[in-house]
Amino acid sequence: MSIKRFGAGARMSQAVVHNGLVFSAGQVGKGADITAQTKDALANLDNWLAEAGTDKSKILSATIWIANMDDFAGMNAVWDAWVDPQNPPARACTEAKLALPEFLFEVMVTAAV
Amino acid sequence: MSIKRFGAGARMSQAVVHNGLVFSAGQVGKGADITAQTKDALANLDNWLAEAGTDKSKILSATIWIANMDDFAGMNAVWDAWVDPQNPPARACTEAKLALPEFLFEVMVTAAV
Amino acid sequence: MSIKRFGAGARMSQAVVHNGLVFSAGQVGKGADITAQTKDALANLDNWLAEAGTDKSKILSATIWIANMDDFAGMNAVWDAWVDPQNPPARACTEAKLALPEFLFEVMVTAAV
Repeated sequence: MSIKRFGAGARMSQAVVHNGLVFSAGQVGKGADITAQTKDALANLDNWLAEAGTDKSKILSATIWIANMDDFAGMNAVWDAWVDPQNPPARACTEAKLALPEFLFEVMVTAAV
Repeated sequence: MSIKRFGAGARMSQAVVHNGLVFSAGQVGKGADITAQTKDALANLDNWLAEAGTDKSKILSATIWIANMDDFAGMNAVWDAWVDPQNPPARACTEAKLALPEFLFEVMVTAAV
Repeated sequence: MSIKRFGAGARMSQAVVHNGLVFSAGQVGKGADITAQTKDALANLDNWLAEAGTDKSKILSATIWIANMDDFAGMNAVWDAWVDPQNPPARACTEAKLALPEFLFEVMVTAAV
């Protein structure tokens, strides 16, 4: 059984590949507002997908958490500009308090490799 | 690599099939209360599973969000009548504010195809 | 198509195995505080992974919910002592109200079998 881990620390890995699937950790981003944080988190996700040998066109499923549902439209504006419109994943988005009070956006995906 | 997307829009797909698995988007439903919305969302899920070539007896994992944990029993009453009792999936249910204030129930699944 | 279900009740299974993957149900634990509940829930998870023919070194992805983000450090202390440091999974942790008011911690995983 082959399991490859990327960005592995003592607590978690940033991406784990097994049998043609990659599972990402929850990706967050830096920035003062939902626009900046969503862009940065999705750029982080792009980087881990590239490390794992894939890209956003192969995302199968995405789970999104935002700290304030009032930011739903702002998050979606960045998402819609980022997502591959020919290859959109299944998605769910709910509101949740995240690990640090400054975090406004987090996304976790499963993608094909 | 074959990835099939169903109900694909510019933002997301309603179901994505790859390598014998289908990943659904978060399904919500219409209705005035938890009973009506859970029934409608699960009917929507049934439809997307059928599009993907599978059915509820092959659900592997379900993640449920309800807007108010006071609706847990009401949601479960509908779930218990709907789920295949010979083939129940792994499941988790938490409370979360959903994309629109009127949404009371959302479910996202992974199933075998 | 082979799907094996472990700890199956009328509502859900505790673990479902298909095509080399196991999907766990959300695992909770008993205890008066985050330390006790996290330990007990992770012990429950260990048991279901063993039933499914695998173990924590093969977890691919973990989703954690805690009822109060003030317990993040307490949860992580137990997690860090439990997780296989050579084989850490992808992980996300958000705050969410859980099914019963006494529940402080819940974890759901996907692992290789």
